[in-house]
Amino acid sequence: MDITTVGGVVCAIGLILLGQALEGGSVESILQTTAALIIFGGTLGAVMVAYPKKQFVMGMKMIKLAFSERKADLGALAKQIVEFASVARRDGVLALEGKLSEVQDPFLRRALQFVVDGVDAKVTRDTLEAAVEADFEEHIVGAKVWESAGGFAPTIGILGAVLGLIHVMENLSDPSKLGGGIATAFVATVYGVGSANILFLPFANKIKLKLAAEKERKTLIAEGVLSIQEGLNPRVLEEKLRAFTGEESGPAPEAEKKAA
Amino acid sequence: MDITTVGGVVCAIGLILLGQALEGGSVESILQTTAALIIFGGTLGAVMVAYPKKQFVMGMKMIKLAFSERKADLGALAKQIVEFASVARRDGVLALEGKLSEVQDPFLRRALQFVVDGVDAKVTRDTLEAAVEADFEEHIVGAKVWESAGGFAPTIGILGAVLGLIHVMENLSDPSKLGGGIATAFVATVYGVGSANILFLPFANKIKLKLAAEKERKTLIAEGVLSIQEGLNPRVLEEKLRAFTGEESGPAPEAEKKAA
Amino acid sequence: MDITTVGGVVCAIGLILLGQALEGGSVESILQTTAALIIFGGTLGAVMVAYPKKQFVMGMKMIKLAFSERKADLGALAKQIVEFASVARRDGVLALEGKLSEVQDPFLRRALQFVVDGVDAKVTRDTLEAAVEADFEEHIVGAKVWESAGGFAPTIGILGAVLGLIHVMENLSDPSKLGGGIATAFVATVYGVGSANILFLPFANKIKLKLAAEKERKTLIAEGVLSIQEGLNPRVLEEKLRAFTGEESGPAPEAEKKAA
Amino acid sequence: MDITTVGGVVCAIGLILLGQALEGGSVESILQTTAALIIFGGTLGAVMVAYPKKQFVMGMKMIKLAFSERKADLGALAKQIVEFASVARRDGVLALEGKLSEVQDPFLRRALQFVVDGVDAKVTRDTLEAAVEADFEEHIVGAKVWESAGGFAPTIGILGAVLGLIHVMENLSDPSKLGGGIATAFVATVYGVGSANILFLPFANKIKLKLAAEKERKTLIAEGVLSIQEGLNPRVLEEKLRAFTGEESGPAPEAEKKAA
Amino acid sequence: MDITTVGGVVCAIGLILLGQALEGGSVESILQTTAALIIFGGTLGAVMVAYPKKQFVMGMKMIKLAFSERKADLGALAKQIVEFASVARRDGVLALEGKLSEVQDPFLRRALQFVVDGVDAKVTRDTLEAAVEADFEEHIVGAKVWESAGGFAPTIGILGAVLGLIHVMENLSDPSKLGGGIATAFVATVYGVGSANILFLPFANKIKLKLAAEKERKTLIAEGVLSIQEGLNPRVLEEKLRAFTGEESGPAPEAEKKAA
Repeated sequence: MDITTVGGVVCAIGLILLGQALEGGSVESILQTTAALIIFGGTLGAVMVAYPKKQFVMGMKMIKLAFSERKADLGALAKQIVEFASVARRDGVLALEGKLSEVQDPFLRRALQFVVDGVDAKVTRDTLEAAVEADFEEHIVGAKVWESAGGFAPTIGILGAVLGLIHVMENLSDPSKLGGGIATAFVATVYGVGSANILFLPFANKIKLKLAAEKERKTLIAEGVLSIQEGLNPRVLEEKLRAFTGEESGPAPEAEKKAA
Repeated sequence: MDITTVGGVVCAIGLILLGQALEGGSVESILQTTAALIIFGGTLGAVMVAYPKKQFVMGMKMIKLAFSERKADLGALAKQIVEFASVARRDGVLALEGKLSEVQDPFLRRALQFVVDGVDAKVTRDTLEAAVEADFEEHIVGAKVWESAGGFAPTIGILGAVLGLIHVMENLSDPSKLGGGIATAFVATVYGVGSANILFLPFANKIKLKLAAEKERKTLIAEGVLSIQEGLNPRVLEEKLRAFTGEESGPAPEAEKKAA
Repeated sequence: MDITTVGGVVCAIGLILLGQALEGGSVESILQTTAALIIFGGTLGAVMVAYPKKQFVMGMKMIKLAFSERKADLGALAKQIVEFASVARRDGVLALEGKLSEVQDPFLRRALQFVVDGVDAKVTRDTLEAAVEADFEEHIVGAKVWESAGGFAPTIGILGAVLGLIHVMENLSDPSKLGGGIATAFVATVYGVGSANILFLPFANKIKLKLAAEKERKTLIAEGVLSIQEGLNPRVLEEKLRAFTGEESGPAPEAEKKAA
Repeated sequence: MDITTVGGVVCAIGLILLGQALEGGSVESILQTTAALIIFGGTLGAVMVAYPKKQFVMGMKMIKLAFSERKADLGALAKQIVEFASVARRDGVLALEGKLSEVQDPFLRRALQFVVDGVDAKVTRDTLEAAVEADFEEHIVGAKVWESAGGFAPTIGILGAVLGLIHVMENLSDPSKLGGGIATAFVATVYGVGSANILFLPFANKIKLKLAAEKERKTLIAEGVLSIQEGLNPRVLEEKLRAFTGEESGPAPEAEKKAA
Repeated sequence: MDITTVGGVVCAIGLILLGQALEGGSVESILQTTAALIIFGGTLGAVMVAYPKKQFVMGMKMIKLAFSERKADLGALAKQIVEFASVARRDGVLALEGKLSEVQDPFLRRALQFVVDGVDAKVTRDTLEAAVEADFEEHIVGAKVWESAGGFAPTIGILGAVLGLIHVMENLSDPSKLGGGIATAFVATVYGVGSANILFLPFANKIKLKLAAEKERKTLIAEGVLSIQEGLNPRVLEEKLRAFTGEESGPAPEAEKKAA
């Protein structure tokens, strides 16, 4: 479970309701079925119009990505790739074939298979880079579904408020209902602005960042496997992959000198 | 028929009107010919000024793209291209000439014709890539027509509301008409904000995504045909095209090893 | 005359005034010299500050581009270039010298002169591409002058309205003037929002699209002339230029095969 | 003195105040020390926080660029470079050394020194291009300081207005002060919106365009000097530099043919 | 301590409160615990949802960067690199090994180690450039955390104001509380707009500019060390690094001539 997602939603909604309660406002006054119907129904409809069915469904499902936590240990991955590079340098790339069954990650396995099969280096690079890019481009649309929801919700919130105000204005003759009517109308704004800024837009941002992290992980794999294919010195490869893992430079170049 | 477009419009407008009805508002109160005249007339005029005639007409026609569903089976297309690659590798590229009549897709036929005619690889690549890009650039203007409409409508809605409020303000002496006048003025905002967020902007987004899908389909064809021209192994080609079809990696690299 | 520009302005302003009239508002109530002075004077001044004199004057003049219609027959142009390619292939590039006097278009003539003069291919490409890009970059600033006007006008409209409201607020003691004062203040908003969305921003967009079309025409010429210099087969050139003319593929590749 | 900057500021503020006077408003009513303190103090503070000291000071100083006029005669510059190219072609690049003392422009002198010193062509290109880009990147931050001021001012104007309205609301019991209080509060909006749209944003735009013109001038010098180093024919160079000077094509290619 | 950050915050908040006091408003009237709870709690929650835990924590910590001053003397750094280039040219790159212990900067030491170890030039370039880019990309997310806070705060401020107004509207029956209630509601807007424009957005901008300066410093190191590896003349290197240090061209090319 992604604790910043759950904690953030609880923190934002909780503190807003607490503040509201401290000021003497009741929670009931901002719970309205009709406003919810207008804002969330209208936003849902607008998003449905904006996306093809396949991408709309994918976007809806990707909300899981915002709530789930997946550890991607880039350091361990880089270490594993450097080990494969050592094996390949010592025993030749065919020696990697026996290691393939150990590899959990499907993309790493697929990439290593190219090396083992002796596919041309340029074809391997083009294919792996295109696969990383295409996968990212395909899934990023899911984040954009939520971004669109975050764009539509506040304006549909205003639409709901204006509809409520029209109703109020038509019944001005009874001033005692004026305040309550305006209050009801304003709840639509609260729903639109609140859902966009506390849920939809932050969800879109978190999904985007998680997809970017996944893309970086795959780029690390692609760069590492391509370096194995080029026969790069494992120590230099370790130094090269440090750009992805973000670790501070240790004694590696020192060691590299001896290994070279 | 594109069910998310139709369903989304029905869902958004239906739920908003339902919410409005549940709150006691009447649908008639938001049906106003004059507001519609101002908002849709003003938006139409602004869009006409913003686009040359040819592109304005194309944009209007492209609304069909938002409502129609066209299945593009990229998997079957990739399979067909891999088959052509096998034929070309076994019997030479001239053997593809007999297959040309089977090809339904005009862009695939045009691309294969280059290969059959023995046109230079670089010229083929430049021409096909320029054709894909130019076709996309030409049609994307159609999506931008709707995006512009979605940009102008809310501001012209505000203009309509302000015009209505001016009328109200000039007749403040009769307070009994105040509420009704303001309500009428607000309907212009509802039309502007609603049409932009439920129709125009989502239409623009859906048209854009469908044009992007078509561009991807043509890029798949171009990449595939160029690989046939380069004599790429059909199994490697299959793996390469997987970036477009988004299928999970199956036993292909395994098989590739044997075929290599 | 560009009928969508003239028609769009007439349509937008006409329908808005018609809607206004139908609602019972008078046209006089939205005609105010002082509001016009504030909005258009303020916008003019802001645009003058924002642009150097030369570019400001060029932008003002480029309004002609939004109102004039210029037919650019890309198909005929492509045909002419393909003919020159045939002549060059048959009789050598020097044979083009006699044709130069027939060429109306100054850019095409300038480009062909490079070929006739035997200037190095890379220098020709660099010079022609730089000329196309520089010409576009220089003129696009004219469209940006109108875009800036469209950005400043609504905010200066709000400034005008607030100035009017300040005046109203200072004279609250006479409520009979309240409505009229607010109405007058609101007219500033109408001028700012209206001029930006019906005139300035659409003008900027149309000028931009016409400059882009001119850039595409020059790119077609540059690509065509560079292909003549490279000695490309006229039939392949015809196919290549189709990306610019947007015509559907005819039997050209078929014919190309025989010509090759 | 840049007459569009001075004229634009005078035009905008003058016509707005004239409009205000014609409507019967007094200039005094929009002169308020406290509102100015809040808006300009707040904006100044926000900009200070947003930029490091060095860049903030540079931005403040660059306001001079918006008000000063500097003639950059690109035609004469191009002519001078073509003359140097003729000298270099006739007498060798070392002959340029004697000409260096005539050169006023420090960047042109620095670039020619590379040629005279016989520095490697690639190093010369990399160094000159990096110098042009770095100089532009360094100074463009100055324009961004004003752009940030133009972004902060309107929102701080709203903040000032809301602070004023809070004050009004707390003293609702005395309705006679209501109008005056609201009027005072609104002046903050006038200051924020007005300073951003008539001063800060247009200043930023003009500074940007002047920096872009300076960058183009240096690019012309760099391209010209690099062409001299490559030994390009002076006539072709003249044609090449025309992309920068924007002059219409004269009989140059004609002459080039004979010179080639 | 970064004096523009501290001074800017003090200047902005101080002058706004001074203006407020001069207009007769009390500071207490804009100090409200509940509004602060709603705005800052809501913004904090939204930012937490928007970022993964690791990046959220990094962003929070990077506020130090906005307040601390770190002198980066690029001139001295360039001078040091030019000295190393002289040593390498005179005594060979291995002579740099003895100098490594003098080097304070870890990135410069790491880069020189590559040269000393005789790693391939292309691998060195790729690795150093990837390291500079990856480091910048990783940390820039921290600036985006503050930018997101600056984006969420004003809308959550509006949300808080609307919640307050709903409370007011429900209690319209007691007009004496009307003004105070609205005033309280407006404080939420002040907190949202103020915190975004005086703190969050300027913080984000300053962090971004400091990260960009650090990136430029590392690029200077990478370019310098790569030039040492290529054996570039130290005088030309000095000229080349001037693009980063922004110093005016001195007599260096003159001297270079003699050294060449």
